[in-house]
Amino acid sequence: MVSPRAQSYAQRALKQKNPTAKLLLETMERKKSNLAVSVDVTKTKDFLAVIDVVGPYTHIDILEDFDEGLIRQLQDLSKKHDFVIFEDRKFADIGNTVALQYSSGVHKIASWSHITNAHPVPGPSIITGLASVGLPLGRGLLLLAEMSTKGALTTGVYCEEAVRMARTRRDFVIGFIAQRRMEAVGLLQGEVGDDDEDFLILSPGVGLHAKGDTMGQQYRTPKEVVLGSGCDLIIVGRGIYGNDLSLTQAIAERARQYMQEGWEAYMQRITTS
Amino acid sequence: MVSPRAQSYAQRALKQKNPTAKLLLETMERKKSNLAVSVDVTKTKDFLAVIDVVGPYTHIDILEDFDEGLIRQLQDLSKKHDFVIFEDRKFADIGNTVALQYSSGVHKIASWSHITNAHPVPGPSIITGLASVGLPLGRGLLLLAEMSTKGALTTGVYCEEAVRMARTRRDFVIGFIAQRRMEAVGLLQGEVGDDDEDFLILSPGVGLHAKGDTMGQQYRTPKEVVLGSGCDLIIVGRGIYGNDLSLTQAIAERARQYMQEGWEAYMQRITTS
Repeated sequence: MVSPRAQSYAQRALKQKNPTAKLLLETMERKKSNLAVSVDVTKTKDFLAVIDVVGPYTHIDILEDFDEGLIRQLQDLSKKHDFVIFEDRKFADIGNTVALQYSSGVHKIASWSHITNAHPVPGPSIITGLASVGLPLGRGLLLLAEMSTKGALTTGVYCEEAVRMARTRRDFVIGFIAQRRMEAVGLLQGEVGDDDEDFLILSPGVGLHAKGDTMGQQYRTPKEVVLGSGCDLIIVGRGIYGNDLSLTQAIAERARQYMQEGWEAYMQRITTS
Repeated sequence: MVSPRAQSYAQRALKQKNPTAKLLLETMERKKSNLAVSVDVTKTKDFLAVIDVVGPYTHIDILEDFDEGLIRQLQDLSKKHDFVIFEDRKFADIGNTVALQYSSGVHKIASWSHITNAHPVPGPSIITGLASVGLPLGRGLLLLAEMSTKGALTTGVYCEEAVRMARTRRDFVIGFIAQRRMEAVGLLQGEVGDDDEDFLILSPGVGLHAKGDTMGQQYRTPKEVVLGSGCDLIIVGRGIYGNDLSLTQAIAERARQYMQEGWEAYMQRITTS
């Protein structure tokens, strides 16, 4: 059996049972991109402008002028630029509450976001609650198995338990927010990994040069993340959209650069693994 | 030095430096109530009606028809019924993102909620990020040191690290979501607790009789929580508002019953500790 690390995104797409995992891998292969852009801005106008320049992904809950019209525009852009939508909500409550947060409220995330994510900290009930809403819609969930911030508590047993939890719900959990591959993590003594297991690994904390910000974020390069650690997608935010949202040329150029470095690292990985 | 467990809420209010911790303890003493009602409904009309019947607390992010008018009405009710507002947002992202989520977006939580809460999982940067917004407004933060759900990962080192993190930011962290007192938790070998430390302990998972729901929530009685474990506030949701929101008499009666049991357990605690 070949490890997911050594297979192409196209090969892995063929075997995925969750429709969102399949869609994501096919899209990555088609666009030759393993870049997820995190657009953390607070105005709809800026949000749509940046996305129109670069591609996927955001925090919808920091937009001050959110409305349903925005979602339609986001979906239009998703078709125009062929990207998958990932609302990085980081659900972290009990099953009953996350089911309401995912389906209801102002944002109605489940109705438009292909992928969302959750912390495993409340235990398996958070997956049950989200799956009760997302599975009928064909959505996929990522668990936050690791965080890239300084002093994060996602170490040791915490991370192992997250992976074990995911293994019990492979119909809905399509992968992890993490810094490395998880096939070997959380196996009990004598337990052998399932050859069919193929979780997607999405990694934040990626920068071309930068080493950190003042609020505890730490960075690694695309090559370290994709080739070195075998992660599948790089998540980049301020590293692409920067501090001046009007400089669309520069934003597009940075996106292109991350996309290229991420893809080259992936090509090197599947040809040398 | 007398443990917080043995002191009255009024005595403890006198020594609090954070204005929200002081306000909360004074309010509890004045109303003779250590009950926080969690109103997890999805319509503004129901939300306001339940609060008008019973008192504090909710998840604003599951309200489908949220608008700024609602916040004004919530604030009016907060004055009318003399309660403190706690948005149970469970922030769980990196510092830069939570600062935006707390200050911005549709909900602008920092502008109206006295108290909010956060998971310690991203590390100390989550406190730094939230404090940058909340401290100038005199707000207070609770850290989720423990969760009451089955299989929660808030055990061992995780909980100890949460408490240590809180001790470094006592200007802003006013207490914990937890199942027990935390004075003795997270002390390093030979380390002695600070006599001035007085974190508020708010406990969810409280029921008069019920044992659990189908999504992994587990319950204890007000007496077990307040007298047995020394917690300061009981958080009750569906146990009070039930399944039929039109039965306001029954809702009020259940709220009264929880309030009375919680207060009796507290009186017994401070007279026998």
